[in-house]
Amino acid sequence: MNAEILARFYGVIPAGGVGTRLWPLSRAAAPKFLHDLTGSGSTLIRATYERMIPLTGDRIMVVTGMAHRTAVLAQLPELADEDLVLESEPKDSAAAIGLAAAILHRRNPDLIMGSFAADQVIGPVEVFQDAVREAIATAATGKIVTIGIRPTLPSSGFGYIRTGAKLEVDGAPSARDVVEFVEKPSEDTARGYLASGDYLWNAGMFVAPVSLMLEHLARNEPALHDGLQEIAAAWDTPERDEVKARIWPTLPKTAIDYAVAEPAAAAGDVAVIPGVFNWDDVGDFAAIGRLNPASESTGITVMGDGARVYSDDASGIVVSDTKRVIALIGIQDVVIVDTPDALLVTTKDHAQSVKKAVEHLKASGDIDVL
Amino acid sequence: MNAEILARFYGVIPAGGVGTRLWPLSRAAAPKFLHDLTGSGSTLIRATYERMIPLTGDRIMVVTGMAHRTAVLAQLPELADEDLVLESEPKDSAAAIGLAAAILHRRNPDLIMGSFAADQVIGPVEVFQDAVREAIATAATGKIVTIGIRPTLPSSGFGYIRTGAKLEVDGAPSARDVVEFVEKPSEDTARGYLASGDYLWNAGMFVAPVSLMLEHLARNEPALHDGLQEIAAAWDTPERDEVKARIWPTLPKTAIDYAVAEPAAAAGDVAVIPGVFNWDDVGDFAAIGRLNPASESTGITVMGDGARVYSDDASGIVVSDTKRVIALIGIQDVVIVDTPDALLVTTKDHAQSVKKAVEHLKASGDIDVL
Repeated sequence: MNAEILARFYGVIPAGGVGTRLWPLSRAAAPKFLHDLTGSGSTLIRATYERMIPLTGDRIMVVTGMAHRTAVLAQLPELADEDLVLESEPKDSAAAIGLAAAILHRRNPDLIMGSFAADQVIGPVEVFQDAVREAIATAATGKIVTIGIRPTLPSSGFGYIRTGAKLEVDGAPSARDVVEFVEKPSEDTARGYLASGDYLWNAGMFVAPVSLMLEHLARNEPALHDGLQEIAAAWDTPERDEVKARIWPTLPKTAIDYAVAEPAAAAGDVAVIPGVFNWDDVGDFAAIGRLNPASESTGITVMGDGARVYSDDASGIVVSDTKRVIALIGIQDVVIVDTPDALLVTTKDHAQSVKKAVEHLKASGDIDVL
Repeated sequence: MNAEILARFYGVIPAGGVGTRLWPLSRAAAPKFLHDLTGSGSTLIRATYERMIPLTGDRIMVVTGMAHRTAVLAQLPELADEDLVLESEPKDSAAAIGLAAAILHRRNPDLIMGSFAADQVIGPVEVFQDAVREAIATAATGKIVTIGIRPTLPSSGFGYIRTGAKLEVDGAPSARDVVEFVEKPSEDTARGYLASGDYLWNAGMFVAPVSLMLEHLARNEPALHDGLQEIAAAWDTPERDEVKARIWPTLPKTAIDYAVAEPAAAAGDVAVIPGVFNWDDVGDFAAIGRLNPASESTGITVMGDGARVYSDDASGIVVSDTKRVIALIGIQDVVIVDTPDALLVTTKDHAQSVKKAVEHLKASGDIDVL
């Protein structure tokens, strides 16, 4: 890819989502992206940022909740003030990614944005970066480009991307047309998708000319588009805070998939690069177990600097956010998450049910621990 | 029984033993007898004390560790200063019960002592008190009398008492001779004991003339006997503390079973009253489950005033010593003990293995949580 095209590239990291299935580790005040869930020494948002630097340099914008300002800046001290977009309330992905597109478009209408969620685990990074380079080259031909993940099992937990004809793009040998995005399927349907070889997991990665993003947004969500343009017009001026405070709360809440990706695919404007890197959205504690091998001597995966774990005839995962001694005796595939104000005890098989517990606690008024 | 005999009766409560299998609830600084393990609202030592009052009035002596002075007095504010025997270090049951016998003997050589551990659960109390009355009547004939528990299962966790011929004692229709005390048997042997009907569980309950206790102690452990007599001679004088501090650390460490009960039985001096009350020594968390029924709606036994437990498809026991939210999901027969500095997660089937964990923690230097 020529340097001129790469110079048009700007990274965007939407950092939202509590990660309810990782409660009580992940919670409103300390969402998933602020944790090191792989034992790498980096939080997920820091790892996401560093994965993009070779492509973007410091041209990276972060969109997150107002409450996370201090924590995000502690993780990303390099971040410029005008590249930190703080939401006064959550407005879903169309508003978050759309505002980034609108601000960048004001700065330079030729920019190509690449939006990658702050809470995914990806490796090897070089393979990921190669896929992004192909996506940039394809986006430069006037496409919204997603990077789809090659499925490894018939998951009913992800949306899928149905791939179409191969595209002829210089610098993007694996680019294909996208026929459609499909919602989370049944497990049976997912088995068919896996067997066909035509489907990829939708990981919410978008690389696209900002102008094309805004064009589709204007067509499908005109009120949202106009509001975002109004904020963007004030962004690099002294009126930024005042205008954002006035407009943001009035914006409609919708997902980028509905507002842009799906209608753009129907219009023939979406391409896909198959991602052959390892990818995990760390959706639950079973994922923590996959990403962090158990100690060979004890059979236990332990996460947490201060953890003091004793085990006898036990296996599973201990995530410790305290300095307490934790003794596990005669219990298998257990998941224990120990935090100062909440304790979760479950099994790997029930990792998905954690969300239900959080909903129950919310309903019963135990919001202090959410 | 005539009032004259009952007037000779004095209660003794040895309050020792950490209750290692109930860690981390029970521990050195807060042993088993200082906990309410039945949800009755009373600690075990308070319940033990109140069970004896109808027989003794306030004539009750407590032998416990120096460290528990404040906690024991908080539980038993009625306790007279001269009836609180504080051990500067643990010296096992022969020294503890023997010192009580020696002090009481100084006060009145005709006294009959009744020694009952501080950490057992007994009911109905009237049935227990009837058994003690029979034991007092039998002791008055010049016997060391134990109250043995009618076995309900072939337990290999208790010592047994082999009963002999029926005795003819006024006021003690169920009194029998004791042939011998036997150590904890194998489960097979225990099955034989249960089938024979000749064996009772040894619950460590002794009712005996203090003079007869001291006589056997002098015969079997003369050094211990002489040391205890020296402390007893100073007990109700200003020299109490000085003499105790000097002598106690030099005393031999042995169990009352070896020092008195077994040799006395061999000499034909021991009788037994079969106890037909319910009895539990609350030896482990499985016992906590037996003694505290699970909630019908959740299947979980919850102990702890501040407990905030959410469960979904789970069963077992939660003992909470914190105000944390505890969420249990998809896990059966679990035992969770949540304290500020230590957490235990095990199953009812592994309740006995908790002791091993404590030994491991001791060996690895984690004594702050023991």
